Amino acid sequence: MAPKGGARGPRDERGVLAARILDAARASFATDGYAGTTVRGIGRAADVDPALVYHYYGSKERLLDEATTPPPSFLEQIVLAWSSPADGLAERLVREMLGNWENPAHGDALRAILQIAGQEPKTREKLRFIVENSMMGPSAQALPEAERLTRSGLIASQFMGLAFMRYLWKIEPVASMSHDDLVAAVAPTIQRYLNGAITRHDE
Amino acid sequence: MAPKGGARGPRDERGVLAARILDAARASFATDGYAGTTVRGIGRAADVDPALVYHYYGSKERLLDEATTPPPSFLEQIVLAWSSPADGLAERLVREMLGNWENPAHGDALRAILQIAGQEPKTREKLRFIVENSMMGPSAQALPEAERLTRSGLIASQFMGLAFMRYLWKIEPVASMSHDDLVAAVAPTIQRYLNGAITRHDE
Repeated sequence: MAPKGGARGPRDERGVLAARILDAARASFATDGYAGTTVRGIGRAADVDPALVYHYYGSKERLLDEATTPPPSFLEQIVLAWSSPADGLAERLVREMLGNWENPAHGDALRAILQIAGQEPKTREKLRFIVENSMMGPSAQALPEAERLTRSGLIASQFMGLAFMRYLWKIEPVASMSHDDLVAAVAPTIQRYLNGAITRHDE
Repeated sequence: MAPKGGARGPRDERGVLAARILDAARASFATDGYAGTTVRGIGRAADVDPALVYHYYGSKERLLDEATTPPPSFLEQIVLAWSSPADGLAERLVREMLGNWENPAHGDALRAILQIAGQEPKTREKLRFIVENSMMGPSAQALPEAERLTRSGLIASQFMGLAFMRYLWKIEPVASMSHDDLVAAVAPTIQRYLNGAITRHDE
């Protein structure tokens, strides 16, 4: 283990320890809330000295910020999905959403963000920013500006509900449906939200 | 204020105090989690003696159970909506969902349940039961049994996501859309989940 205080272990050890601390912090914030989480408890769960938690992350608040920041590759995948050709876009968005949540490198972080956002106004504010910018933002590539926020907001509403049912609350049969079955069920919804009639005047 | 201990105030005062305690408990569970909530704190927030909290609710666990139980009238409205004639069912379900969430007698409880479920495994279990039985269960009136859970699970996924976007995270423009606009946007989704093609073999 790296000595506490200023000295650092080798690069890769540092990365491993920092990741272990962050995992422990996410689990604690998600279960016990911000008030119920202590740096000492995070240190214990990560099997490191609390001083090392401070050394790597500075403060509990900073740690909350890190713990609720989605992995960059998660956002990159969303941007990439939105750049798909229009005729396969709905299916691509559904598959990307499922893949992101089932990616071991992202899933825990996404679950933790939604759980923490239930309790922490600051995290809720951040989640709102993530949804508006990172999830609905890249839709500018595919949607006319006047309808972009309405259409991408409706898409986000279907995806968020699917995430809660399948990955957080694990309600059957949605929790166990195959990707193909979910694409068949949900892609037409996303397709309509992308370019179908969604207002009273469209019909 | 009613004296603490066995003595009770008049009937209506009792009801008022019990409701005030329950409101304070919901707010505290939602914000501070189960571990971060104390009976003393609930008493303080409700402006009553902690002994009265015990007198009315017995224990913190019992209070959590009460705080996460949806109001009976909420479930009754869902059952009633599901008994609508088939051709107006989708719109009726959307309007009922919006009405339930915007009903001052239900909204706070529903918000608290979803917030607490993020943290408390016991509440998550209970939410699963509520969704499976009270929300998806009454669909037996309208859906063939073989597809009932899949179709009503998809409907729940859209409604839950809409609830988070609109009522918990308040993400625009979904948070401010009129009921008529939301019906125009979302009822066709619900209609397809009710009786449209939702599998690869339907097409």
